[in-house]
Amino acid sequence: MTIRMELGRNSYDIVIEDGCLARAGERLDLARRVLVVTDDGVPPAYAQRLAGQCKTGVVATVAHGEGSKSLDTLQTLLQTMLDAGFDRGDCVCAVGGGMTGDLAGFAAASYMRGVDFYNLPTTVLSQVDSSVGGKTAVNFGGVKNIVGAFWQPKAVLIDPKTLATLPPRQTASGLAEAAKMALIADRELFELFETQDVSSCMERVIEGSVRIKKSVVERDERESGLRRALNFGHTIGHGIESATELTHGESIALGMLPMCSDAVRPRLLRVMEKLGLPTEVRADREKVYRAMLHDKKSDAGALTVVRVDEAGSFRMERVEPEALRPCIEMVVKA
Amino acid sequence: MTIRMELGRNSYDIVIEDGCLARAGERLDLARRVLVVTDDGVPPAYAQRLAGQCKTGVVATVAHGEGSKSLDTLQTLLQTMLDAGFDRGDCVCAVGGGMTGDLAGFAAASYMRGVDFYNLPTTVLSQVDSSVGGKTAVNFGGVKNIVGAFWQPKAVLIDPKTLATLPPRQTASGLAEAAKMALIADRELFELFETQDVSSCMERVIEGSVRIKKSVVERDERESGLRRALNFGHTIGHGIESATELTHGESIALGMLPMCSDAVRPRLLRVMEKLGLPTEVRADREKVYRAMLHDKKSDAGALTVVRVDEAGSFRMERVEPEALRPCIEMVVKA
Repeated sequence: MTIRMELGRNSYDIVIEDGCLARAGERLDLARRVLVVTDDGVPPAYAQRLAGQCKTGVVATVAHGEGSKSLDTLQTLLQTMLDAGFDRGDCVCAVGGGMTGDLAGFAAASYMRGVDFYNLPTTVLSQVDSSVGGKTAVNFGGVKNIVGAFWQPKAVLIDPKTLATLPPRQTASGLAEAAKMALIADRELFELFETQDVSSCMERVIEGSVRIKKSVVERDERESGLRRALNFGHTIGHGIESATELTHGESIALGMLPMCSDAVRPRLLRVMEKLGLPTEVRADREKVYRAMLHDKKSDAGALTVVRVDEAGSFRMERVEPEALRPCIEMVVKA
Repeated sequence: MTIRMELGRNSYDIVIEDGCLARAGERLDLARRVLVVTDDGVPPAYAQRLAGQCKTGVVATVAHGEGSKSLDTLQTLLQTMLDAGFDRGDCVCAVGGGMTGDLAGFAAASYMRGVDFYNLPTTVLSQVDSSVGGKTAVNFGGVKNIVGAFWQPKAVLIDPKTLATLPPRQTASGLAEAAKMALIADRELFELFETQDVSSCMERVIEGSVRIKKSVVERDERESGLRRALNFGHTIGHGIESATELTHGESIALGMLPMCSDAVRPRLLRVMEKLGLPTEVRADREKVYRAMLHDKKSDAGALTVVRVDEAGSFRMERVEPEALRPCIEMVVKA
C-alpha cells in the first residue's frame, strides 16, 4: 500500500509492504552515492540488503541508543560523506529506528545545505510515527532534539517484516505511540487495541497511525497548532524519559495517563497492561519535573499540553509548569 | 530605502539606510531573548547598540576570520542559547561580516529546528552580497560551506555608516563582489565602477547589488540554474582562497578574470587596479587546483562555471576540471 504525503514540492510516498526493503531499488533512486546509516542494534543484513542495491553504497553503523544522537556522531557521518566524495546529487538512507532516522535525516538536511533523504524504518516506533513528518534532530547539552531541521524525506519505505526481529519490550514501546495516535484521532483504532490481538493486525495499526500523522502533518508542515497534538503525553513523557531508564514509548505512555479524562484513563491503563507497558515508574519526581522544563515544547514560561477527554479527540491547554506536579505524581512514584 | 524580497511565506524586507542600526528596534521584534552574534574584528559598539534595544540581549563575540566558521563555534552559540533559556519564540541577530552571518544564521536555522534570524551586515561584502539569499553554513573537514541550511532572515538591516570603520583592503574585497554582480547582470553599474569614484556612491552600489541578488534569489530560492550565476568567479576563486592568504573578494576577483571574454577582461583588470585589488597571485597551482576540486559546486565529476562574454550578461558552461588548469595559470603565478 502507498500513502501519499501531500506537501507541495516536498510531497512524498510512504510505502507499507512486506519485503519492500529487499526491493527498494524499484522505488528509490539508488543509482548514485548512498550513505546507508544504521545502528548496531539492527540486524546488519538490513543495511547490507539496501547497500547492495545502490550504485555506490556506503554503510555507516553507529552505536544504538540515544548517545549516538549527537553532534559528534553527526560529524562522523558528514566526514564519511566528505571522504567518499558525496555531492549534492547524492543521498542518505536511514535503516533503523527513530534515533537513526533523526540523525541520518539531519545529516542529509545539513550536508551541502541539504541532499535527498530516504527513510526505511525497522522498528514499530519509527514505522508508526517518527519516520513520517520531516523532523530531524540530535540532542545537545543534555536536551533532546534541541538542534535539527525540518527536512522531509523523498520517500519512506516501511517493511513490516523487519519487525519480526524486535525484542518484545521495543515492540510494546512502539505500540504505545500508535495507541497515542489512536487516542487523539481514531476511536476505532483505539477500540482495536482494546479488543484485538495487536500483533496479528500490525499492518492495520501501522496504516492507521501513518494516516493520522499524515493528516496532521499535511495541515501544518511546520510545528504549531494541530501538529502539537502529536505531542500528547510528551511533555511529562520527555521528563520521565530523561530521568529514568524507560524507553521513549514507555515514557510517553506514562505521560499520557494524567492527560486523559477519568473516563478514558482506565481504558488506557488496560491497554497498557495488555501491551506489557509499565503503568507507573519509580523516580525522583523533582528530577522529572526539571527535565520536563528543559523540554523544547516550553514557550515563554507556560507550557502547552494536549488533553484527551474522549477517545479519538483532543484539546490543547496552556498550563503553568507547577500545575503539572500532581500529574507527575500520578505516575512517578517517589 | 526598503527592498522587499518576495519569497512567499519566507518574504522579508532589506532596509538600506544610514543609521538604521541605532534604530533597529523600530523595525525588528527585539522584545524577546536575542542572541547578538558579532566578531572581535567589528567595533564592539555596534553589537552593544543593538543589544541595548533588546528585551534580553545576549552578545556572543567570536574570533574574526574563517576559523570561527566551524561546528565548534556553532556549538558555543547553541550552548549560549541553551544556557540563557532560549525557546522557539526567541531569535538570533548577526552584526558583522559574511562569516558572522553564515555562522549565526546556521545557529538560528538549527536551534530547535529553526528560530527567527535578523542580519545586520557591517562590511561591504556582506552588505552587497552575503546578507541576502538565505545561505547559512560552516566549514567542515577543510571544505568551505559544506554543512549548513537554507534559512531566510526575517529582515536585513544595512547601515552604510558602519562601513566607515573598515580597513581599505576589506572595502576593496567587498567591492569585488559588487563588481561581479554588475558584470553578470547590470552593465550600467559596471560602467559606474569604470567611470566614478566608487567610495562616493556606496549606496548606489549596495542598492544595485542587492537588486541583482534579489532578482536571482526570487527566481530560484534553492540553489540551481540561474542562482548559480552568482557563483561567477567562485570555482577558481575558492581554490585560490583555500591555497593563499588572499581574502574572499580578492580571490573571486582573480577567479573572474579567466572567465571573462578577451573583450571584457581588460576592462575588469582596470577596475580591479582602480579598486586596489591584486591582479595576480603567487601560489602553488596544483594546490589551487586540488582545493578547487573539493569545492562544493562540483557535481558528478564535471564542473559548472559561469562565463561573461559581454558586461551585464552571463552564460553557464559545463567543463571538465582539467580544462580549468590554463585558467588557473592565467592568474596564479608559480
